[in-house]
This record gives sequence, structure tokens and C-alpha cells, in this order.
Amino acid sequence: MAFITLTTDFGTRQGSDGVLHGAIYRIAPDAVVTDLSHHITPQDIREASFVVNNSAFFFPEGTIHVVVVDPGVGTDRHPIAARLGPQFFVAPDNGVLTACMDRAEREDWTSEFVILDRPEYWLDSVTATFHGRDLFAPVGAHLAAGVHLKDLGTPLDDPVTIPLWGARRADDGSVTGEVIYIDDFGNAICSILPDEIAHLALPDGVEVELCGARIFGMVRTFGDSEYGTDTLIALWDSSGYLLVSENNGTGGRVIQPRPGDEVTVRRVEGS
Amino acid sequence: MAFITLTTDFGTRQGSDGVLHGAIYRIAPDAVVTDLSHHITPQDIREASFVVNNSAFFFPEGTIHVVVVDPGVGTDRHPIAARLGPQFFVAPDNGVLTACMDRAEREDWTSEFVILDRPEYWLDSVTATFHGRDLFAPVGAHLAAGVHLKDLGTPLDDPVTIPLWGARRADDGSVTGEVIYIDDFGNAICSILPDEIAHLALPDGVEVELCGARIFGMVRTFGDSEYGTDTLIALWDSSGYLLVSENNGTGGRVIQPRPGDEVTVRRVEGS
Amino acid sequence: MAFITLTTDFGTRQGSDGVLHGAIYRIAPDAVVTDLSHHITPQDIREASFVVNNSAFFFPEGTIHVVVVDPGVGTDRHPIAARLGPQFFVAPDNGVLTACMDRAEREDWTSEFVILDRPEYWLDSVTATFHGRDLFAPVGAHLAAGVHLKDLGTPLDDPVTIPLWGARRADDGSVTGEVIYIDDFGNAICSILPDEIAHLALPDGVEVELCGARIFGMVRTFGDSEYGTDTLIALWDSSGYLLVSENNGTGGRVIQPRPGDEVTVRRVEGS
Repeated sequence: MAFITLTTDFGTRQGSDGVLHGAIYRIAPDAVVTDLSHHITPQDIREASFVVNNSAFFFPEGTIHVVVVDPGVGTDRHPIAARLGPQFFVAPDNGVLTACMDRAEREDWTSEFVILDRPEYWLDSVTATFHGRDLFAPVGAHLAAGVHLKDLGTPLDDPVTIPLWGARRADDGSVTGEVIYIDDFGNAICSILPDEIAHLALPDGVEVELCGARIFGMVRTFGDSEYGTDTLIALWDSSGYLLVSENNGTGGRVIQPRPGDEVTVRRVEGS
Repeated sequence: MAFITLTTDFGTRQGSDGVLHGAIYRIAPDAVVTDLSHHITPQDIREASFVVNNSAFFFPEGTIHVVVVDPGVGTDRHPIAARLGPQFFVAPDNGVLTACMDRAEREDWTSEFVILDRPEYWLDSVTATFHGRDLFAPVGAHLAAGVHLKDLGTPLDDPVTIPLWGARRADDGSVTGEVIYIDDFGNAICSILPDEIAHLALPDGVEVELCGARIFGMVRTFGDSEYGTDTLIALWDSSGYLLVSENNGTGGRVIQPRPGDEVTVRRVEGS
Repeated sequence: MAFITLTTDFGTRQGSDGVLHGAIYRIAPDAVVTDLSHHITPQDIREASFVVNNSAFFFPEGTIHVVVVDPGVGTDRHPIAARLGPQFFVAPDNGVLTACMDRAEREDWTSEFVILDRPEYWLDSVTATFHGRDLFAPVGAHLAAGVHLKDLGTPLDDPVTIPLWGARRADDGSVTGEVIYIDDFGNAICSILPDEIAHLALPDGVEVELCGARIFGMVRTFGDSEYGTDTLIALWDSSGYLLVSENNGTGGRVIQPRPGDEVTVRRVEGS
């Protein structure tokens, strides 16, 4: 059983997400195809990197993740395929796999990359504007059908990476990161991990500052705030990052955070 | 062949809908997973109850319906699983299954409920904020893989229910209900069933009042109105309920009905 | 392995897209179901025709495409099924298959049509307003399960067609078409094909006029424009048609094209 996931910025109106399934089934009729997201902000490589990394490793070992957020389609950027530990990826070489590559490094997994330069694994006719359908989906399908990664192209040592989000610690011990993503509930996922603020007095002795608002202490889950109030809360998100929410998990009404906004966690005076 | 459906308020941008598929395939690689809806209004338990009940029973017998609209995630509300006649359900014990339970009662089906208190059927690590991925999807997958309902937890006699929509008959024979749902065409689905107005002079001798507008008589289908006009029409929806529509099924331009608005059906004077 | 695709204007909030999967699995539990699009503009038969024709023929031979954009549901319009060369279709007889029929004619494929008048292939109870669930999906499932097209109903010789988009050549050699579709990136897909402007001085000696803006020359792909500028570009879309885009494939900020807007390609003076 071969599993394939799809992540793109194509939207779901035009059939350009659905046609990827068709292109796959022609080559790998037994593949099981899952749409991870087709609503990445258009051409937002960093957001795609975040979304794919959050979900890819919950799939069965050997799953093939096709990621097509590709502002450079048809230019000389390379298409690539990769194995990062237990999972496969097919994507443009534009840094969209950076977050997954970081994970592989932290987990000490082996990785392999190839440049996709063997047209026999693509559609017969490749357009200049839709490599998702004409190249990336077919390559993913050939992997699903049993072709080995190394047979898809030429080994690559130095895939493109992009600067990701992060956190920095100031002399006074406070830690500053940024908003990575606003989820569909309006919550702000922030680039601060538990390790990075473990030296502070968690959970009650910290304050979180975002968009001018201050939140005192962290809670465990959404239900720990009073429903229907405008109380902001800070907690650990299921992605592992700091989350700022309000109103029992339907945020965004008191403050209007946006990706890139600065967030700081510091010790509350006296704690 | 085991079928699983997913209904959530997660949206489809972030991959939190897609990751449920991955969590299922890890446990039940042969399961066939269908997205019923990931666009329930955030935390709207009653709307989810309506949507699931409308569609669940069209699936093959033995289908497992995973429903995650869960404002109380991580608090002491219980996760439960249920068998309601021919179908299985996995959900928080917050009343989201009420409409399906009502159906089971009316159809005189047997029902069983268990509290999900056996962590061996969950992911190894369960976060406080994403039980969809960490608990509900895995339990659904174990059901799909052949685990018996009673082995998933402790029997439960009194699951939580919520007040649903309904209709009341006045002394003059008129029947008043409420708008349950506005569909994607802008039509208003109203909480009045055929039995409840069978004493009136259907189809031509009734008037339907909603948002100050009056519609005389009921029609059989959308095409029975004049296309491109602003004529309001009343008819029976495929869900079984009274529907108020306009313009050949693309409603919402003459009146702006909202869930909870009152709707009344009465005999036209003289009929 | 039988493949089925679904194209509707139902949206994805209410479960009326998902329930089609359930109605299919009851009849054809082994079918593999793909959502092509559920976001056709409500009741826009021409748009549905465009979307289905763009994607259907990338699926494996024998795939069954169920198309439900059906303003006349429950009236005397016929439901039909068709074979157009290598693919099957199930749809209302309202012209929604016109673009695919055009393709079949150009490719010199054989075609067959039947009126769906055998209720034994529908759900036991058919509502007046939801033939997608009650009739079209079940018929698609029976095809998937091995029923022959001709056994589903009565042969039909003259299916309904609708006027599609096209291009006309003026005496001065200029060619005028119209905007067919605005994609999720804001790009305008225009009804002009390569053959129709092959007599002009491509790629550099032409100008494209749309919404009062003039674009000089055609480029090969999105990346051939300068990212972050407001430069409009013209290129060939992966659907085969002329595309007007801007800003490296995220269009719609300089001009606001809409379906039906006129587009003209002419020789640049002096070239």
C-alpha cells in the first residue's frame, strides 16, 4: 500500500488539485492519495514548509509527500525528490522542504536528494506552467509504483534552504520570536519552543506579549479560559509551538496578529 | 472494506484535516476515508449534529463517523464511541451526536455507548489541544481494523444531549419553527417536517412567513420558480425539512435569513 | 480498479459533497472517488464544462466523471450518461458536457449517450431536489461496478449543447476572444488557442489588449516576469489557452478582468 499526500497553493475551485489524483492513478492505480492542503497562501514557500512539516510525519513510513508551491515553475530551478528519514518528498528545489530537513537533522535521520532530470518519469508533454500535473505528481506516482529514489535523477548534495522562523534570548532572559501562522480559529502559532523558555518560571510566572497585549501565565488547553470572554490565553499548540488564543480557541477579536509579528515571553516581575 | 468519515471545524488550510488521514492509515492502512465536512462553523455543536445526521446514514452499514467539534478539548469532557443502529460514531461527549441519537430512537434501533478510557488505542503521545489527531482518529482506525466497540472503553448509559431545533403548533393550527442552516446556495433549511404541517392545506393553501416575507403555496423543486426573478419559494428539502429558496435555488438576495430566525407556516385565509 | 470523479456546485460546508461518496460506496465499495471540484459558481453550466474538460482526460481510461451542476433538478430535463472516447460521464442533459463533446469530435472519438430512465439504478427513494445523491452518484457507481452504459437507459442521439467561448479573426488579422475563467491566482484564462494566432508574429511581435491594458509580446512562463512588479504578462496556460497574468502568477491587482471580458491579440505596428 503506497500513500501519497498533496500540498499546493492551487485552491480547490478549478480542478487543478483534483487532476493531480488523475495523473497519479494513471501510473500508480493502487496509490492512496490524501489532500494535505491546497490552500497555502499563493507562492508562500515558508508557510508550505510549516504546514508540511506539521503533518507529514504522522503518515505511515514510506509515504510520498508531493509539495507544489512553485513561483519558479518553468524556470531553471530544479525539481527534486528526497528521502528524509522515513518519508519521501517531491518538490521544487526552492527551500520548501527546509522545515522537514531541519527535523531530519535534529532527529539524526539519514537524507538523500536527487535532481529530477529523467523525463521518462514525467508526462509525455510537459507544459511550462503546470509542473504539478506534468512532473511532480507523475514522479510521486512512480515512487509509489516502486521506482527507487536514486533512479529518478542525479544525486544532489546541497538543496536550497530558506531562513525559517526562530527565537532569540536577550540578556535579561526574555525570549523573542515571531508569529508563524494564523490558523482557521484565528489563533497565532509563534516560533517559540518549550526548550527555549524552560529557564523561565513556567507556567504561572511568565508573561507573553503580542501586538501590545500582555498575557499572564500559560494554560494547558483552550477550555481553561472562560468561554465567551475576550480573555487572551497562551498555551502549547499541538505543533509544539507557543500558541496565543482567545475566547476558548476562537481567537482574533481582541488583537489582530499577523505572520511576522513579534512575540516575547519574559519572567513576570517578582516571580 | 472499512469506511471512515471525518467531520470537523478545522477548515482545510492548515493540514489538520489531512493529518487525520495519516493517523488513520498508520493503524488501518486499508480504511477508505471520506471528508464529510471540515467547514462546520467553529465550535458549533448543533450545526455539526445537523450535518452529520443528514449524511451519515447514506454510507454503507458499519461506516465509522469521526466527529470532532470539540470546544472542551483537553478538559474533563469524555471522548466517546457509539453504535447507533447500523453506523458507528467517535466524538466528544458534548451532544454532537444528538440528532443521530434522535434518529436511532425514532427508528427503534439499538444503541451502545462507551467512554474512551483505554490509552492503548490512542497515539503514544496525546496533546492537550488536538484530540482529533491524537485520540479520535486513532480510535476510529482501530474500529476499522476490527477492534470491538466494547473493547475501546467503559460502557456509558447517559451520553450528553443538547436541545435541538423543533416546531410548535399554535391553537390556530399554524406551525412555527426556526432556521437550522443556510446552505451554500443561500437557501434556508427550516425545522418543520411534513408530518407537522400535514393538517394544513398543502401544497397551495398555505403561506410561509420568514423574515417578514410571505410565500404563498409550496412548490416541488427549484425549477418551479421563474429563473432570474426574485420570487421566494418554499419546498421540501432533500434533508426532509422545509426549505425557503429564491431565484431557482440561489437564495439570499431578497431576505437575509440566519440560523435561529423564526419561520411560520399557516393556512391561507379562505383555503 | 474503477475511478470516479465528482464535479458540483455544492460547496464543501454541508456534507452534500461527502454524501456522494457514501452513496457510491454502498453500490461500488471498491470505487476510488476523487473530488474534482465542488466550487463551480452556483448553476454555472459553462464554467463546469470548462473545468471538467480541462481535467477529465488526465484520468485513467474508463474513469467515470459525475457532473452535477443542475439548475433544472427535478424538472423534465433528462439525466444522461455518456461515453466520450476513453471516458464516461454522468450528468444532467443541460449542455454541461459540451466542451468534452467538442474535444471528442476534434479527436474523432466515438461517442454514446443514454437517457437515464431505469430507476433500478437509482436510490430507492429519489427526492425532487438532490439528484446528485439520489440518481447521478448511484448511476456512476453502477457503471463502476460493471453495468454497461447501454443498460442504464434509452439511447439518445441529440444531447443538449450550449454555446461555448470562441475567437474571431478580423480583416486586419487581429483575433478577439473572451475571458473564460479567473483562476485562484487571479489569472485570466482567455478563449484564444495557439492555432488561432499562429499567423501573427509570435512571441515578440504581438500585443494583447484586455480591460484597457496592453501587453507587448508573450513570455514562456510565470517566472519570466519580474517578481513584485505590476507588470502584466501574456503566456500559454497549461489548459492550452492564452493566459493573462501579472506579478509572477499572482494576478488581478492592476486590472480586474471578469469572465466575458473581451481580449484581443494583434500584430504590433512595425513588426
